[in-house]
Amino acid sequence: MYRSPIKHCRNCGAAVAYRVPDDGDTRERAVCPACGTIHYENPLNVVGTVPHWGDKVLLCKRNIEPRWGKWTLPAGFMELNETTAQGAARETDEEAGAQFEMEDLFSVMNVERVGQVHLYYRARLLSEQFHPGHETIEARLFTEAEIPWDDLAFRTVKETLACYFSDRRQGAYGIHVIDVA
Amino acid sequence: MYRSPIKHCRNCGAAVAYRVPDDGDTRERAVCPACGTIHYENPLNVVGTVPHWGDKVLLCKRNIEPRWGKWTLPAGFMELNETTAQGAARETDEEAGAQFEMEDLFSVMNVERVGQVHLYYRARLLSEQFHPGHETIEARLFTEAEIPWDDLAFRTVKETLACYFSDRRQGAYGIHVIDVA
Repeated sequence: MYRSPIKHCRNCGAAVAYRVPDDGDTRERAVCPACGTIHYENPLNVVGTVPHWGDKVLLCKRNIEPRWGKWTLPAGFMELNETTAQGAARETDEEAGAQFEMEDLFSVMNVERVGQVHLYYRARLLSEQFHPGHETIEARLFTEAEIPWDDLAFRTVKETLACYFSDRRQGAYGIHVIDVA
Repeated sequence: MYRSPIKHCRNCGAAVAYRVPDDGDTRERAVCPACGTIHYENPLNVVGTVPHWGDKVLLCKRNIEPRWGKWTLPAGFMELNETTAQGAARETDEEAGAQFEMEDLFSVMNVERVGQVHLYYRARLLSEQFHPGHETIEARLFTEAEIPWDDLAFRTVKETLACYFSDRRQGAYGIHVIDVA
């Protein structure tokens, strides 16, 4: 898992207690009994792209857990000091080593169960040459018929790909807002 | 500020050191020399609504810092165990005490400088009666001409309101993706 429970204060190191702060808050937080620091935990953004080349889409075979060996769109956790689009481009570079041009936001998906929001952008590939990083076993292009639907790493990837090929058939791309169970 | 620097490990309380982890990462993280925990810090989502009633929009006068006394759309930090839309609805209830029906996602704004992504939904008000909470001095409706443009709390509120009234004039609402400096 990406986040372990908060046991100690980030400011002074004392053991925290979980309680509702006295500042009008309504949720339990990890509160430091020594220095008063309140620790908030909030959802994380995952940002990525749908890199496309003609009627094909680029997928990466994961060389990391979770879902080692499954296929995914290039994506990862958004970092500080970058926008959602910059983060999506960074992940596409790191995981696929692709050359591409960023296009519009394409999907916004809530994955409430794991406290994440996933945002995918369309990206137009400029070359068929890929140089995947250490997180990827293989990067290759798939037509809609070739997509390994049963071997995709995440539900958000499946939803985004389904929307992408559906929009492509209709000749117009929207922004898809989806709640993923 | 919402987040203080990480000085101690959340797992064991030891003082952390900032360095690039040995796992292929490229960024400095707060790493615990005692137990090895790597601490990640990522952007936060702020979720809110544009509550509308005829040709008017609901604004709240802030009773909290930052920007005490300035006008804002109801919005706040997205919490765990809720979707972006649920968080936006919660904030609208807490800050304005309004009755409303949630509509579509309207704006997605990167505020890179502070490590935030703001997402606003349109919300159709069902009543002109508001019961604002302790974070709000006053909640009231404004036509476009009445909006206190120079007394808005945040740039994201200004951008969202400008897009809203522009779309309203054109009779069609889109999803606006904006980088806010």
